[in-house]
Amino acid sequence: MSDQTIVAVDAMGGDHAPHEIVKGCVEAAQQFNIKVILVGDENQINNELSHYSYDQSRISIIHASEIITMEESPVTAIRKKKDSSMVVGLNLLKQKEADAFISAGSTGALLAGGTFLVGRIKGVERPALAPLIPNKKGFSLLIDCGANMDSKPSYLAQFAQMGSIYMENIMGIASPKVGLVNVGAEKEKGNQLTKEAYPLLEALDLNFIGNIEARDIPYGKADVVVCDAFVGNIILKYTEGFGLSLFDIIKEELLRSTSSKIGALLSKSAFKRVKNRFDYTEYGGAPMLGLQGLVVKAHGSSNAKAIASAIRQAVKFKEQKIVEQIEQKINQ
Amino acid sequence: MSDQTIVAVDAMGGDHAPHEIVKGCVEAAQQFNIKVILVGDENQINNELSHYSYDQSRISIIHASEIITMEESPVTAIRKKKDSSMVVGLNLLKQKEADAFISAGSTGALLAGGTFLVGRIKGVERPALAPLIPNKKGFSLLIDCGANMDSKPSYLAQFAQMGSIYMENIMGIASPKVGLVNVGAEKEKGNQLTKEAYPLLEALDLNFIGNIEARDIPYGKADVVVCDAFVGNIILKYTEGFGLSLFDIIKEELLRSTSSKIGALLSKSAFKRVKNRFDYTEYGGAPMLGLQGLVVKAHGSSNAKAIASAIRQAVKFKEQKIVEQIEQKINQ
Repeated sequence: MSDQTIVAVDAMGGDHAPHEIVKGCVEAAQQFNIKVILVGDENQINNELSHYSYDQSRISIIHASEIITMEESPVTAIRKKKDSSMVVGLNLLKQKEADAFISAGSTGALLAGGTFLVGRIKGVERPALAPLIPNKKGFSLLIDCGANMDSKPSYLAQFAQMGSIYMENIMGIASPKVGLVNVGAEKEKGNQLTKEAYPLLEALDLNFIGNIEARDIPYGKADVVVCDAFVGNIILKYTEGFGLSLFDIIKEELLRSTSSKIGALLSKSAFKRVKNRFDYTEYGGAPMLGLQGLVVKAHGSSNAKAIASAIRQAVKFKEQKIVEQIEQKINQ
Repeated sequence: MSDQTIVAVDAMGGDHAPHEIVKGCVEAAQQFNIKVILVGDENQINNELSHYSYDQSRISIIHASEIITMEESPVTAIRKKKDSSMVVGLNLLKQKEADAFISAGSTGALLAGGTFLVGRIKGVERPALAPLIPNKKGFSLLIDCGANMDSKPSYLAQFAQMGSIYMENIMGIASPKVGLVNVGAEKEKGNQLTKEAYPLLEALDLNFIGNIEARDIPYGKADVVVCDAFVGNIILKYTEGFGLSLFDIIKEELLRSTSSKIGALLSKSAFKRVKNRFDYTEYGGAPMLGLQGLVVKAHGSSNAKAIASAIRQAVKFKEQKIVEQIEQKINQ
């Protein structure tokens, strides 16, 4: 492949597909030296594209007649819907016709498809899904939140390596601090998995800061937060639920008196800034690491800006040769 | 033992010991028909008691010369410090000289001591620590947050039974909703542990609502939130860290402009009400369930009110015959 990054995008995935997806691709094609392949229903995509003027050499369409929905069983959907935008897109990655595939569709299907259709990097035991989660200072990479529910210690060691490479090269954090999620700071703490993973992580060429407790995560104590996918899923979804419910509670209480209603009005811009600090649209989506190429899970409610950010992320991923770096690190 | 509840209290445990502990005991002895045994340094306790007038038949002291600190290894401390307030107090429970033991000291030591010194209820495989965590509607019981890091499916089934009995009888929730913490709602989802635990929970005489995702917890979808201690610990500490960091972020942003500073002043009482909804002092402490008697882990920063609430909790525990109920349920 050339130096130009080729990004395949699932035009049919997400709450605002295809409108916001296509819009984001057009915006990104103006900003970056890329080729975008929009995968999905040709008529719908052409209809969306007709609203914009753009460099036609940079955006092409590959038709896919099916869509995988959120309700379908991921594995079955990937197996049966061979002409879905997701399967067609992932196959482009597999056949090296694209460097990255971005989808705001079903997470489960993307994980299954990424694992079954796209090849793993040599030496990688399991690919991992690694979303960025907000903390007081910025964002941490939470790895793994993927499909692999029962992890081995060696998987966690590889997650730490892949996450560290990502945070250093894509997020620009020098010598990222790697923490192992555990129930206490001491080396001997934890369940069987974390107890066995600790010495493996310690032996790696990483900035391993040891165990971190869950209370440390929101303070940004670690840049790379390592855990198995079950725990990662709990942390990810708890962050979402707890944040939303706390804002609900604050709203409820603010609406209870006239003075606090006025207070809330006066504080509106401050609360907006708080929300902005959690804005996922800035940084693209969750990378699936360990595959031959980049698979990005964009947020289900992605708008054009989020899709453009995900494309920027893919460009950087190619430029920084993350696949090659992971392969080298894992096999050294 | 008589109908009067006998509560042993660790006078030396917690950030505000012995002052707030003794004060809480005096207050509780005025409110309830109980006997309180204060365990710890006799001189210090007598000095504290000298500030109050109280019914001397209700409060007694058992001297203990040692204190287990937060820094000590829990298991070693329990084994070596035989005359510590914690070990002496737990032995009172073991010898049936008290119905309950309350401590705001080291959680690890209390868990180890509870497990090794106090006998288990017949049929109970593992005792569990079950704190109440705040949700939008009130509180849920999170079980297990104990010392047992690698759980078996059968433990989770017993946690569900014990937690359900506690929420029904102590917190007054009719037919408590029991949820299994998992990565998806469907029965087939999860890691090996949750997949095997699901049918066991389903077969029990409980209001089992199936799997719940972490995002559902803050909304109070389940009254009894069942998980292994590793996951429970993550949820518990993440709640603490995330809540505090979010309040920090809100404060930071509110202080950034004059209008939002005024807004914050006007909203002060609303924020106070938000904080009150998370007030742990109201409901006592975290019960350790499955033992012959009640062990309560009170919050490290417990004040007199929290200690008095924990004593009220112990009275109810005895009145409602929770030990007998658990024994019957587990062995039926």
